[in-house]
Amino acid sequence: MAPSTITRILLKDYVTSGYPKLSDFNIETAPAPTKDQLKVNQVLIQPLYFSVDPYQRGRLSGVKDSYVESYKKGEPITNFLVAKVLASTSKDIKEGDLVTDHDGKFETMYITDAKHVNKVTVSDGMEIRDFVGVLSMPSYTAYYGTFVIGKPKAGETILVSSASGAVGQMVLQLAKAQGLNVIGVAGSDEKLEYVKQLGADTVFNYKTCGNLTEAIRKAAPNGVDIFYDNVGGELLDAALANLNDYARVIICGAISQYNIKSADEIYGIKNMTNVLVRKAKVEGFIILDLFDSPHYPEFVEKVSKLYKEGKIKYKTDEIDGISNAPQAILNLFEGKNFGKTIVKA
Amino acid sequence: MAPSTITRILLKDYVTSGYPKLSDFNIETAPAPTKDQLKVNQVLIQPLYFSVDPYQRGRLSGVKDSYVESYKKGEPITNFLVAKVLASTSKDIKEGDLVTDHDGKFETMYITDAKHVNKVTVSDGMEIRDFVGVLSMPSYTAYYGTFVIGKPKAGETILVSSASGAVGQMVLQLAKAQGLNVIGVAGSDEKLEYVKQLGADTVFNYKTCGNLTEAIRKAAPNGVDIFYDNVGGELLDAALANLNDYARVIICGAISQYNIKSADEIYGIKNMTNVLVRKAKVEGFIILDLFDSPHYPEFVEKVSKLYKEGKIKYKTDEIDGISNAPQAILNLFEGKNFGKTIVKA
Repeated sequence: MAPSTITRILLKDYVTSGYPKLSDFNIETAPAPTKDQLKVNQVLIQPLYFSVDPYQRGRLSGVKDSYVESYKKGEPITNFLVAKVLASTSKDIKEGDLVTDHDGKFETMYITDAKHVNKVTVSDGMEIRDFVGVLSMPSYTAYYGTFVIGKPKAGETILVSSASGAVGQMVLQLAKAQGLNVIGVAGSDEKLEYVKQLGADTVFNYKTCGNLTEAIRKAAPNGVDIFYDNVGGELLDAALANLNDYARVIICGAISQYNIKSADEIYGIKNMTNVLVRKAKVEGFIILDLFDSPHYPEFVEKVSKLYKEGKIKYKTDEIDGISNAPQAILNLFEGKNFGKTIVKA
Repeated sequence: MAPSTITRILLKDYVTSGYPKLSDFNIETAPAPTKDQLKVNQVLIQPLYFSVDPYQRGRLSGVKDSYVESYKKGEPITNFLVAKVLASTSKDIKEGDLVTDHDGKFETMYITDAKHVNKVTVSDGMEIRDFVGVLSMPSYTAYYGTFVIGKPKAGETILVSSASGAVGQMVLQLAKAQGLNVIGVAGSDEKLEYVKQLGADTVFNYKTCGNLTEAIRKAAPNGVDIFYDNVGGELLDAALANLNDYARVIICGAISQYNIKSADEIYGIKNMTNVLVRKAKVEGFIILDLFDSPHYPEFVEKVSKLYKEGKIKYKTDEIDGISNAPQAILNLFEGKNFGKTIVKA
């Protein structure tokens, strides 16, 4: 029998500076939704595992001009999750199916439109929790940028910024599995060591390397075919100076430019003309828009295969119970996690 | 019978500053090539019409770091031309065929590899000279950028810089024929008047409009879906600030950044992060690389049709005789031409 109440995590106060605190969240009990509340083409779902990701920090802030919508005060926080279908009025999804919701609610049960979820199946050798682990949003971000925009060819050189991050480490492993020469950039020796362990051919520390354009030239003497950029600004500029003909630049993030207060502080890109000279392509994308793409099931299939073959390594840090989700978010910012954080409902 | 001598135009001296002079060229008579000199997969061709274009100025300079190769001192100048095939050892091209050569020699007869030329046919209502007129390289540049990179949809807004130039005026007419809202930018009222006559919906003078970002916002209150850029620098930056979601930015030229002496003078692009926020695509291309693309015959077909339907207006200024080619080049820089310059061999 379905439970008569649910637990949910609400945002109590916007996090305007510093790390989030437990008191910024409300853990609330509420009446459970029932299947007779379903309208046409809706599903009643029970989340099994929630993904917790660093980009949620931006969504706790209440800032409106970001490219990702802020959470709203007094409403449930949301993120990528995997859930079991309890009831459905959609012809494509039935009771017992498994779905992912790329922007699902931190609630133990909720109703949503069928078009907001993706039906998935657990392939042999994989587990349900992998959908918020190795198959989670940062991995899809890495896959989409690397394959759909980057169109990598064996033997090409890819440069990856924030190479030790959730997206970067997947980019470098996917690129390596594809036969590319991989250059990883990160900001500490510890991170670079990890990046090397994951298979990067060459690494450098952007904080200590001196002139960035020269550092890239040294790391990629034959030039850069693909730049997977998570940081923007000066590193992007230096990468543009090192592009090969027909290079692809994937703009996935611009973290160096996010917390800038005045227009004067914005870094001015000087090597834009190289996009012409090198006949290059620079493309931005935001993964939240791309879950209705055929590339999502393609990603699930291909990355599952690579993972089972041992070509991709992935660590997770599992926390039990939705009530511990606020603490899981805090741990992420205090550096207490090791590997991808997931919360079991 | 084939003539025993040919006439050709050689570059005598690099043009390092100011306009070219007649004395920078040599008009030479040389022995004619013969068909028994043909190697495998070559053609002996007789140019009928030569295209003369402003970008040739850069090729006269001897500068090596440009994206287009400089002409070499003592060698024939080259450009787009249409020619008759006199003899061929290629199975795809036969005597009497018509071909275009996107980088053909200013000679009355020459041998080249068959892969360097494109076989073309004159469709009903068109003339041979149209291949260096309305169907010439600047038009293909406009077509390729607008359609292949821009993927325009009726109702979208396109912003075109250097809108009165050979490329810009074709972009705006192609976009207008496709049902787009067209905004033309140019640097004089006379040019803007011409741009309006060709069908631009809105125009502004970048020299007198004040703040460029505001000027674009006013001209495109619903945002820019496609920016066809011929100038780079500040106007590109202002356009990036006005992009709509999924906008396409076509980097065709960066004339504002070409004659810069020191790195300090290079304009720094501040709105690069908008490529991420707007999920935009910025792509550079160089048309000289794109004549073996299936888009070239597609361009010839589509633009011929639009021209015959009267949807594209095109003016040419025809000069007779290859010996007058140097003067035709001079006229172009002294502003004596009106319309596209072509030279009849």
